[in-house]
Amino acid sequence: MTNFLYVVPALGVLALFYTWLRSGWVSRQDAGDERMRTIAGYIADGAIAFLKAEYKVLTIFGLIASAFLFYLGSTGEKSSPVIVIAFIIGAVFSALAGFIGMKIATKANVRTAQAARTSLSKALNVSFSGGSVMGMGVAGLAVLGLGSLFIIFYNMFVLRYNGGANGIEMERALEVLTGFSLGAESIALFARVGGGIYTKAADVGADLVGKVEAGIPEDDPRNPATIADNVGDNVGDVAGMGADLFGSYVATILATMVLGREVVAVGDQFNGLSPILLPMAIAGMGIVASLIGILCVRVKEGGNVQAALNLGNYISVIVSAVAAFFLIRWILPNGDLVIRGVTFNAMNVFYAVVVGLIVGTLMSIITEYYTAMGKRPVMSIVRQSSTGHATTVIGGLAVGMESTVLPIIVLAAGIILSYECAGLYGVAIAAAGMMATTAMQLAIDAFGPIADNAGGIAEMSELPKEVRERTDILDAVGNTTAATGKGFAIASAALTSLALFAAFMGTANITSIDISNARVLAGLFVGAMIPFIFSALAISAVGRAAMAMVQEVRRQFREIPGIMEGTGRPEYEKCVAISTQAAIREMMLPGAIALIVPIIIGFTMGPEVLGGTLAGVTVSGVLMAMFQSNAGGAWDNAKKSFEKGVMIDGTMQYKGSDAHKASVTGDTVGDPFKDTSGPSMNILIKLMSIVSLVIAPHIAAPERGMAPVELPKHELDIRPKVRYADVAPQAAEALFMLLRERQ
Amino acid sequence: MTNFLYVVPALGVLALFYTWLRSGWVSRQDAGDERMRTIAGYIADGAIAFLKAEYKVLTIFGLIASAFLFYLGSTGEKSSPVIVIAFIIGAVFSALAGFIGMKIATKANVRTAQAARTSLSKALNVSFSGGSVMGMGVAGLAVLGLGSLFIIFYNMFVLRYNGGANGIEMERALEVLTGFSLGAESIALFARVGGGIYTKAADVGADLVGKVEAGIPEDDPRNPATIADNVGDNVGDVAGMGADLFGSYVATILATMVLGREVVAVGDQFNGLSPILLPMAIAGMGIVASLIGILCVRVKEGGNVQAALNLGNYISVIVSAVAAFFLIRWILPNGDLVIRGVTFNAMNVFYAVVVGLIVGTLMSIITEYYTAMGKRPVMSIVRQSSTGHATTVIGGLAVGMESTVLPIIVLAAGIILSYECAGLYGVAIAAAGMMATTAMQLAIDAFGPIADNAGGIAEMSELPKEVRERTDILDAVGNTTAATGKGFAIASAALTSLALFAAFMGTANITSIDISNARVLAGLFVGAMIPFIFSALAISAVGRAAMAMVQEVRRQFREIPGIMEGTGRPEYEKCVAISTQAAIREMMLPGAIALIVPIIIGFTMGPEVLGGTLAGVTVSGVLMAMFQSNAGGAWDNAKKSFEKGVMIDGTMQYKGSDAHKASVTGDTVGDPFKDTSGPSMNILIKLMSIVSLVIAPHIAAPERGMAPVELPKHELDIRPKVRYADVAPQAAEALFMLLRERQ
Repeated sequence: MTNFLYVVPALGVLALFYTWLRSGWVSRQDAGDERMRTIAGYIADGAIAFLKAEYKVLTIFGLIASAFLFYLGSTGEKSSPVIVIAFIIGAVFSALAGFIGMKIATKANVRTAQAARTSLSKALNVSFSGGSVMGMGVAGLAVLGLGSLFIIFYNMFVLRYNGGANGIEMERALEVLTGFSLGAESIALFARVGGGIYTKAADVGADLVGKVEAGIPEDDPRNPATIADNVGDNVGDVAGMGADLFGSYVATILATMVLGREVVAVGDQFNGLSPILLPMAIAGMGIVASLIGILCVRVKEGGNVQAALNLGNYISVIVSAVAAFFLIRWILPNGDLVIRGVTFNAMNVFYAVVVGLIVGTLMSIITEYYTAMGKRPVMSIVRQSSTGHATTVIGGLAVGMESTVLPIIVLAAGIILSYECAGLYGVAIAAAGMMATTAMQLAIDAFGPIADNAGGIAEMSELPKEVRERTDILDAVGNTTAATGKGFAIASAALTSLALFAAFMGTANITSIDISNARVLAGLFVGAMIPFIFSALAISAVGRAAMAMVQEVRRQFREIPGIMEGTGRPEYEKCVAISTQAAIREMMLPGAIALIVPIIIGFTMGPEVLGGTLAGVTVSGVLMAMFQSNAGGAWDNAKKSFEKGVMIDGTMQYKGSDAHKASVTGDTVGDPFKDTSGPSMNILIKLMSIVSLVIAPHIAAPERGMAPVELPKHELDIRPKVRYADVAPQAAEALFMLLRERQ
Repeated sequence: MTNFLYVVPALGVLALFYTWLRSGWVSRQDAGDERMRTIAGYIADGAIAFLKAEYKVLTIFGLIASAFLFYLGSTGEKSSPVIVIAFIIGAVFSALAGFIGMKIATKANVRTAQAARTSLSKALNVSFSGGSVMGMGVAGLAVLGLGSLFIIFYNMFVLRYNGGANGIEMERALEVLTGFSLGAESIALFARVGGGIYTKAADVGADLVGKVEAGIPEDDPRNPATIADNVGDNVGDVAGMGADLFGSYVATILATMVLGREVVAVGDQFNGLSPILLPMAIAGMGIVASLIGILCVRVKEGGNVQAALNLGNYISVIVSAVAAFFLIRWILPNGDLVIRGVTFNAMNVFYAVVVGLIVGTLMSIITEYYTAMGKRPVMSIVRQSSTGHATTVIGGLAVGMESTVLPIIVLAAGIILSYECAGLYGVAIAAAGMMATTAMQLAIDAFGPIADNAGGIAEMSELPKEVRERTDILDAVGNTTAATGKGFAIASAALTSLALFAAFMGTANITSIDISNARVLAGLFVGAMIPFIFSALAISAVGRAAMAMVQEVRRQFREIPGIMEGTGRPEYEKCVAISTQAAIREMMLPGAIALIVPIIIGFTMGPEVLGGTLAGVTVSGVLMAMFQSNAGGAWDNAKKSFEKGVMIDGTMQYKGSDAHKASVTGDTVGDPFKDTSGPSMNILIKLMSIVSLVIAPHIAAPERGMAPVELPKHELDIRPKVRYADVAPQAAEALFMLLRERQ
């Protein structure tokens, strides 16, 4: 019982152990012939070069932020300079999560291409294994980091000073722990924005000159930007997505813990700590559920890949739900719990988890509807492409805007229902429940770009046609999972932000945020404007970088002799450098806005106005994220519809028709929408909320009149009763068996 | 002194008298040769046909709404079935405002073309006279309607029952008066959306086939859609804009009056009524200030048209500010006034008016910067057009998003400052101050489409080249005034909505709207989503209608013999019918959403959640309005930049270049943005607020514990002391003199 605190980080270790094992397995797969290895080497080198350049800049940022945090932590009784340590660990773990994902993706891509020479099922196995390494790595790092730091800070701030579950000592411990989330989310923002700019500058630049001007196919080795384009898939879709979900995962758990401090839980076996421990326990349990789901993904030759992935996903969701039931009953007390005047019980908390799981699933389904080929929204764009570029763009914009309706209704219903279940703690727990299967979600998500890259390598290495056909099947599935993954990421970011928002209010000692107050209303307006300027900066950065890329590619075509005949070698590294530099340079300003705006507003206008600003950012950010991501996804698939041919007004239209050209314009407009600004919104709203939470004790309103219910002082013994050495070998053995059996 | 109440409607009569005089003068101008009259006749007939069809449908809507209002008015002690009368008068006046504008515009267009044969200054005189008829007509109807109805309802509900300035009797009188605003704004919404769909369906349809496919110039009489296109300018830009600003004007005055009821004003000469009377007085004063400004607009041959308009505008703004100073000092008491605990005095109210005037001016300037030729934003789009359709679109979207930043900061500052001046009453008064010069703004605004139409008629009638050149100068100025007018309209709608929002809270008996309440937050999300679905519906309606237009024009080109040689007459009326039917059909759903959503949320979730919804609609609507209008304006002028030639990367690019073609795509995407969905946002947010205000007494929270300060019962004698017959002839004579001197 008393070992319970150690179970959480232990589950993180389990996940990392899986990562290590599986990643070794992927590495041992055949990496193909000389040419394939060379191309894959270019891609891997480009990706590493970008991460190095990025992390170098982020180190400087980290030092500045650390100094600021040290200053903040040294003032105010509810904080401590130790927050700097948490921040640095969070930042390093986030960078590590991105690095692990990118490393495995650049290994798995070429091995997937090679595996596709044999069979579809083998190719899926390799690419999905790559994805699962990333998923389990991200989840493992998060749970290990949060779990261990909590033990340390609990020991350091609470036990040592004999603090209770909801006294000032616990407040300080959690405030310091927030630094971990801040570190994680800051790195995530830069990774997402930088990676997003990188990948789209390369993609748009490569397409505009290669496909449109020179008339050579996608991924043609004669195109100097093609390596940069493939690197972009890894740094944007893999590393960026990994850092994003790592951040969401950590922020959700943390926000729920902070709110948990305000829950009065009398009679639990953890001396009132149970509401704080529950979110970590759910996350740990989610790792196991995801692992089960991952192990269930297999497909026979000629089988349905999408169905296999869906099965694995549903298994992990259902296992999570069932396990959450027992976990909650075991951890929370039998009697009533209270938060800010709302009374609830353990079953209500379980219902909130179910609400979260349902919201996440519905969001994915709706997103898929709006972006899938053959469904009404995409078909309406296809039809409008027959009247030209402009109507295609108009059609996509309308689809994007329309696509916000159902998700917002689902989200609003989810907020109300989870609040009805267990007050603000219910909203946070719903988010935690939704995020429980993050590892599984990420595995599915990361598999897409790996398959995409494998196709690129197959093309560039001139492998037989059936190889490309097999990777194309995986890639098509990957497009769908990318869309649903975005729906999931947006929903989770929205709920996470609400949880953070609620935690912020508690920490800042405000009980209401009244928008009939003129200053709060002004804050709401300013907050809602942030996603617009952020998107404008991200989009125009892509535009500028793409134009630089276009000019470089044109120059190479002009100046390098024999390049079009395949005898002159393009200078790939020049294009890689352009994308890298543009991404690093252009990610600064939007990143700075997200970090600085809450600090300025918080310290000059106070917590209530900052609360209004956060509400504005969240509402407008969620809408802009859906609008942009879904418009982009729909345009993409409208374009893809022409590849197999599509019926418009009674005539079949194929690739190369005027309608197809118009659809390419739509797709290009959508590129920065869906892969740069759209997904950055998630992190923007989370990061601004976390920054606010971190500064909350320093801008807090005076203590409320009502004295908090003080629970008995600590009696929770946190010394481990079982030694790791006694259990680790058995656990490792069991996992080995499972994996071996599977291959 | 006691005649004061009658001065307001009398000023409305003055404005209408000007309208009548000036409109007679315009009619007496030369309407040109046979061919011009014929073409102008087609346009006028098409416009009238549309208004007839529209008003027919709106009559049915009016009957349904009246029945609902009658039911509402019959229940609840704070309402009365008389609200139906106010509603109908508001709807009829709004329709009349649109009708007057359209009637004069379709007269002035052909006469402007004819005047342009003589001189630029004569052409400006005719077209601006047309605009001023519309401006004064709108303002006159608003002031006359509100002023007279207030006298009637004050008499009916307050005097008869011996009610005080802030008793329940006055509450009932103002609630009934709200019906006037509801009628005005409902018609405005349908007029704006319907007119916007009409004009853009015709415009896009005419351009796609005419310019792009058949290669004939704009306004070519061989194009079957060209009449519909010109009709569109009148029903969209003139009638739609007129109804829009009529609605804003009325709503602002009314919201300030409703808030004025809550102001405790002891010791004024109107027995506590002064805060209620002030907004009407400011509006009346604004009519005089606008009239002075209008009479100052003249230009010598070869003079600067823009400068002449600016001069007139600044004169009316400054006259308003000075007059407001004396008016406020005279009407409000010397001592302190109090609203919801905020204490202020007469000077503070004057400062709030100044804030409103400054906000309005700044918004216009910023809007001009983002949409004017040669400035950075438009030039960035021009440069991006050199790399194709997609980058042009991306560039415009980024400009539109970026253009929200400064206006939002100005608006937020305006909200805070005007609140600091005089609480919520200050925010409302700022809006009223800003709207004071509505007549002048509208005169400048409506002049643009008249000049545009004149150019079209000159083209179609094959008038000499210098005529088109002169109308093109006016048209170019008109494009700028259209952009600044949109900035003004958005700013006014935002402040008006806030005033309505505040009035709603007072009427619904709620003192705070707490977004940390889960239901309110859900309301905020749903509200913020409404502008997205509304825009999606409007945009895709334009897309669908334009496609129908394209098919009809293609059919006529194919089937009518001799059409391209100019010997076969195109069937203009078929295209007019397509636009008309599409507009009527497609305006229904978005209009219904705006009306029904607040009713459903208000009655099922209560006033606080509805308040959250309104905040969401307002914030997101203002952002979407700016984003869409400014992106559209910037694309339009990026395209226009090519007409005179523009330097991109060292080479001059002209009309017909690939870059120009890309810029045409941008312009076409922007068309529904800037003329359909963007400007509809204004009305959407106002209408939803007004609907909420109307239902507020019926969904009100229980009375607040605090008893309102009851002022002495009525002693205000409202019987007129001077008879109209005694003063009217002198007033008329003076105005005659002024106008005669001017010609």
